[in-house]
Amino acid sequence: MPIKSLIRTIPDYPKPGVQFRDITTLLKDATGLRHVVDALVARYSDAAVDKVVGIESRGFIVGAAVAYELGVGFVPVRKKGKLPGEVLGHDYALEYGTDRVEIHSDAISPNENILLLDDLIATGGTAEAAAVLIEKLGGNLIECAFIIGLPDLGGEQKLRTLGYKTFSLCEFEGD
Amino acid sequence: MPIKSLIRTIPDYPKPGVQFRDITTLLKDATGLRHVVDALVARYSDAAVDKVVGIESRGFIVGAAVAYELGVGFVPVRKKGKLPGEVLGHDYALEYGTDRVEIHSDAISPNENILLLDDLIATGGTAEAAAVLIEKLGGNLIECAFIIGLPDLGGEQKLRTLGYKTFSLCEFEGD
Repeated sequence: MPIKSLIRTIPDYPKPGVQFRDITTLLKDATGLRHVVDALVARYSDAAVDKVVGIESRGFIVGAAVAYELGVGFVPVRKKGKLPGEVLGHDYALEYGTDRVEIHSDAISPNENILLLDDLIATGGTAEAAAVLIEKLGGNLIECAFIIGLPDLGGEQKLRTLGYKTFSLCEFEGD
Repeated sequence: MPIKSLIRTIPDYPKPGVQFRDITTLLKDATGLRHVVDALVARYSDAAVDKVVGIESRGFIVGAAVAYELGVGFVPVRKKGKLPGEVLGHDYALEYGTDRVEIHSDAISPNENILLLDDLIATGGTAEAAAVLIEKLGGNLIECAFIIGLPDLGGEQKLRTLGYKTFSLCEFEGD
């Protein structure tokens, strides 16, 4: 399983004490990219996914490849003010203050089965906000999937407590 | 050819007089996403591409899917300060002031054949900066490819004048 070994850890980025898990070393490797996409496609190939939603911006990378392989469309969730059409937005708490993600109001049709993808789940605030947006548009959120889970930060646990299914391709502990 | 017909035009976005070409309506459509990726993969399947470079952030979407299908790795070019490792940067002129894009210094090895992808080319400043970074790392830039070309804005012409090959899946004139 080469996925975890191809992820580079950058100490003290973006601030002291944080171990940044850098997927660019995984994605630039042809075998690494293939393993990531293939593992996700295998997991969801029988799940009747209608659309893949990817979170800006690293969630776009694997999200679109998985959508293409599953034969479905891709929908971006973006930070405030980045989508040009009519949007639905949701605020979520940061350590200090709030942030906001948005989705196009016409991006999902009621009862469509949605797979949510991002590169990493830490505390889960962005993923939870994206999940809320998907459900507000009437989507049926099948699962929230990530390349990297950081279980010590509690994001997956929080999403599961809220009733969402979660999956991570690999985990780093001690963060 | 459903690509152009699935692109939504949003008038006066982000400012009056601009016709914004919105690819989210193309990407959310399973057939649209498939046509875009398949057309690019068909064009470059015999080009001995070693890596696909995608420009933040809409270039990530199709770039990663094309990289996966070609069986190669994917490399992001990002705006200043977004990449965690050691980077090479290049400034480029905007209408007022300058902007900067960066690439990881170890993202490309000398003599690798590189395909550069973005969603749209307007005046071409970002694509030119990305091309410079690719060449500074020793990459052999095969072609700069876009979903949308806006020939009236001169970006493709400028890139060709600089010696780069360019390709757009569709064009909108009168912008």
